[in-house]
Amino acid sequence: MHTFATARQLDAADELAEFRDRFVITDPKLIYLDGNSLGRLPRGAVTLLADLVEQGWGARLIRGWNDGWWLDLQTRIGDKIARLIGASAGEVIIADSTSINLFKLAVAALKMRPGRTKIITDDLNFPSDLYILQGVCRLLGPDYTLHIVPSPDGIHGSPEALAAALDDNTALLTLSHTVFKSGYTYDMEAVTALAHAAGALTLWDLSHSAGSVPVPLNTARADLAVGCTYKYLNGGPGSPAFLYVRTDLQSEIESPITGWIGQAAPFDFGLDYVPAVSLRRMLTGTPSILSIAAIEPGVDLLLEAGLDRLRKKSLAQTDYLIQLWETELAPRGYLLHSPVDAAQRGSHISLAHPEGLGIDLALIHEMHVLPDFRPPDNIRLGIAPIYTTFTEIHTAVARLAEIVDTRLYEKYRDAQVKVT
Amino acid sequence: MHTFATARQLDAADELAEFRDRFVITDPKLIYLDGNSLGRLPRGAVTLLADLVEQGWGARLIRGWNDGWWLDLQTRIGDKIARLIGASAGEVIIADSTSINLFKLAVAALKMRPGRTKIITDDLNFPSDLYILQGVCRLLGPDYTLHIVPSPDGIHGSPEALAAALDDNTALLTLSHTVFKSGYTYDMEAVTALAHAAGALTLWDLSHSAGSVPVPLNTARADLAVGCTYKYLNGGPGSPAFLYVRTDLQSEIESPITGWIGQAAPFDFGLDYVPAVSLRRMLTGTPSILSIAAIEPGVDLLLEAGLDRLRKKSLAQTDYLIQLWETELAPRGYLLHSPVDAAQRGSHISLAHPEGLGIDLALIHEMHVLPDFRPPDNIRLGIAPIYTTFTEIHTAVARLAEIVDTRLYEKYRDAQVKVT
Repeated sequence: MHTFATARQLDAADELAEFRDRFVITDPKLIYLDGNSLGRLPRGAVTLLADLVEQGWGARLIRGWNDGWWLDLQTRIGDKIARLIGASAGEVIIADSTSINLFKLAVAALKMRPGRTKIITDDLNFPSDLYILQGVCRLLGPDYTLHIVPSPDGIHGSPEALAAALDDNTALLTLSHTVFKSGYTYDMEAVTALAHAAGALTLWDLSHSAGSVPVPLNTARADLAVGCTYKYLNGGPGSPAFLYVRTDLQSEIESPITGWIGQAAPFDFGLDYVPAVSLRRMLTGTPSILSIAAIEPGVDLLLEAGLDRLRKKSLAQTDYLIQLWETELAPRGYLLHSPVDAAQRGSHISLAHPEGLGIDLALIHEMHVLPDFRPPDNIRLGIAPIYTTFTEIHTAVARLAEIVDTRLYEKYRDAQVKVT
Repeated sequence: MHTFATARQLDAADELAEFRDRFVITDPKLIYLDGNSLGRLPRGAVTLLADLVEQGWGARLIRGWNDGWWLDLQTRIGDKIARLIGASAGEVIIADSTSINLFKLAVAALKMRPGRTKIITDDLNFPSDLYILQGVCRLLGPDYTLHIVPSPDGIHGSPEALAAALDDNTALLTLSHTVFKSGYTYDMEAVTALAHAAGALTLWDLSHSAGSVPVPLNTARADLAVGCTYKYLNGGPGSPAFLYVRTDLQSEIESPITGWIGQAAPFDFGLDYVPAVSLRRMLTGTPSILSIAAIEPGVDLLLEAGLDRLRKKSLAQTDYLIQLWETELAPRGYLLHSPVDAAQRGSHISLAHPEGLGIDLALIHEMHVLPDFRPPDNIRLGIAPIYTTFTEIHTAVARLAEIVDTRLYEKYRDAQVKVT
């Protein structure tokens, strides 16, 4: 096994190391490997929120709206996120939740391909996305169908199987760019080209990519995308989501939820809805200012660190973890349920084990390690390169080994677990 | 005119006076008459948010979800709001924005009345509500129509005109309980009975009622309702909204936005959507915890003050303002655009004036008074009985008079204004 000293050397050589101190770390001994579910709290968010509450809500009161700062938040932060996901200014905006954005864009996509009634996705996609898509088909009528392409092994996506499913009745191909269980990442350019060749639109869920994996939205000519901000973007618990619409589609797209914030002139209080000329037409109701404002400090940190450096460190760390798995964990029954090929890999590594749930709970309750768990047996180790260290990864692996050696998991075998 | 001394006496006798100190008031000279757009900041919200950010997000991290506290927020706060709006436990839940909740409930209502294709509302309703309803009709197809009943005078609603519009093709009657411009409040029991007699469902927007006007949801057998939390409920800028579904309709209603938080077992990650058994089925995506949690302190204050006492004070204050208008403002060209009948009156008073916009801006920029403005000429004076004082009302009226006497409005005649 790599020694602990090696891990310390890697940390010492890490050019992003200083960024860890930009986050609030109340318990330095806690090994947090769940930044892919809820990113850590940026120090900047603490001061921003305190100021927003006391100076904004408390003192400026309604003038916070009139000043324009609150109203501009959704586009300003959207433009910053655009720089992390290969999009252009004006193509990304903060709105609602990922589920609601997916609903709006999926309905809009079907309306943009009249006569076509099929949506294609795969069984690696977030169940939450499948639920929304099922609801969209139910809402629009019995002609509409959702076709779920199975993964060959539950780990990797199959562009070939997607190509075979695409036909001239397909309106929309929608996938997680990086899938939530295995961390497999699709080749966005190749898959978008397949969809376009069949005349279908693409809608990407970037929740597990944004802020950790390069996303070539513009290069791929991707049509639509959504994503959450509370994972690698460090936006806070349940922070509102973003959506992307390629510039040339923005005059054509129509939201099914025609809210006043998406109206061309919301403060004229006219009785008829007229969509805004820009991407603001995809906005709905009054935005939740506290939760939205809190997104910006985390995004700023990622921009400062730079996605190239973040990706480089992420791959170095997942490589390191895979090497440790090979020598320390594979012999103890852990299966690697993430791609070995770095080009197909997101920023988390999934390990399956027949005693997975018990191991996960032992890690949390006795080992001071916070990973997360996806049924039936998947332990996800999330690496957020902006604050995860090599020594944390080394220590987590040692504890994963120890739990098997001591059979500590037996104590937690029958527990119930809630994770998100 | 009532003297300033009278106003001071009324304040001294106010049994709710102590509640003003439970809010952050950074500038005691600012007369804030816009609690009907953005309620003041409760002191409790400052400490709650600081704790939630540093102890919750910062220290508990993903365990904030696993602990259950975050997941239960939407129902717990909903149950508290239920007590303010005449509903029962389990009938109110926090979710999304008012616009999105209206979308979900309007679509669901149409599906619950198959074969009927007409929605009725009036032209006193929020434009934002009209936009959503127009979008719903467009989405569901050309058979669906929105019928907008005109108010006889732009101030009062007309139950008679609604009755005439209701027919056996009407699926839904949806209205603002208290309308945003004039503050006219519908008789919910009478109007709901009219709708039910025609076989239609009712959907009430309570945004301008919740927390200031008694709402008899259960007594009226009202079917559905939505409302925002950032006005009289003091939930913070753009805080998420609530929705109400009467208990006996909850097993029948289906959300068009089938999000994972509304799934029967969200943490099983099954591939097929199954709605939750309870009102949670109307939830959608991951909730914005910071913005939702901030709602609770304001609601707690209203419950502590008691809606009966709040309504009593609100009526005393709007009566007082109308008396002052009669002697001081009517002679200066201000028209009363709110009901004189207390039973039809919400908690704000609208005054129209040919120089309305200039007067509004002079109040804000030179007179230390914050009202709000609705085009073309409506100055809204919002009374939040939990913190508004009689002396504030007295002073505001004196300044409204002064602006006309000195023609100060001329300076602001051609200004643009953004208000919410």
